[in-house]
Amino acid sequence: MKHVDYKSVKFEPFEGADARGAGIRWLIGDKDGAENFAMRMIEIDPGGYSPCHSHKSEHEVFVWRGKGELRLEGSNHPLLPGTAVFVPGEVLHQFVNVSESEKLEFICVVPIKKP
Amino acid sequence: MKHVDYKSVKFEPFEGADARGAGIRWLIGDKDGAENFAMRMIEIDPGGYSPCHSHKSEHEVFVWRGKGELRLEGSNHPLLPGTAVFVPGEVLHQFVNVSESEKLEFICVVPIKKP
Repeated sequence: MKHVDYKSVKFEPFEGADARGAGIRWLIGDKDGAENFAMRMIEIDPGGYSPCHSHKSEHEVFVWRGKGELRLEGSNHPLLPGTAVFVPGEVLHQFVNVSESEKLEFICVVPIKKP
Repeated sequence: MKHVDYKSVKFEPFEGADARGAGIRWLIGDKDGAENFAMRMIEIDPGGYSPCHSHKSEHEVFVWRGKGELRLEGSNHPLLPGTAVFVPGEVLHQFVNVSESEKLEFICVVPIKKP
């Protein structure tokens, strides 16, 4: 069992030039006993973005705070508090904060890779 | 790909005497192409509760709105906006709204059972 306020979980900035002002908190993962999927909070500063990339794993997203855009293979989808998004695997995607003043924060659930 | 405001997803009340003023919206599930896990919003009215039960599947929870308690095998854990909880499988648990005026709403992710 784990019970935590998300703000108390360590924030880890994304490294590399393909992201800007963005990072992650691992709220629930394999270290907590989760075997199938992990829950993270992604946080992006105003003007920032996550890497534009694709991978095998799907994402299930729920927007907590802020105003953003999901750029997904050439189309843009608005992100507002209460928006849920399913991003299938192998689809090119990027999360962008479009606010000038407020952080974009969203829950992002991914499968845990099994050995 | 699915993109939706959670309020636009059909609300389905829990049936049976073991729940009171509680129900669910299936935000992302197998019908949307999700193969590994499903994202739901659980909503509980003031004074209401979910069934007190246990099952094989784990829960990963993130509280969106309201004030509640997770009752888990005899111990109580507060639920406030921003609280993340991992409830392992096979553990007796119940979600209770302890507010007199506000709904308790939380994201609850579960594995999708494979045939």
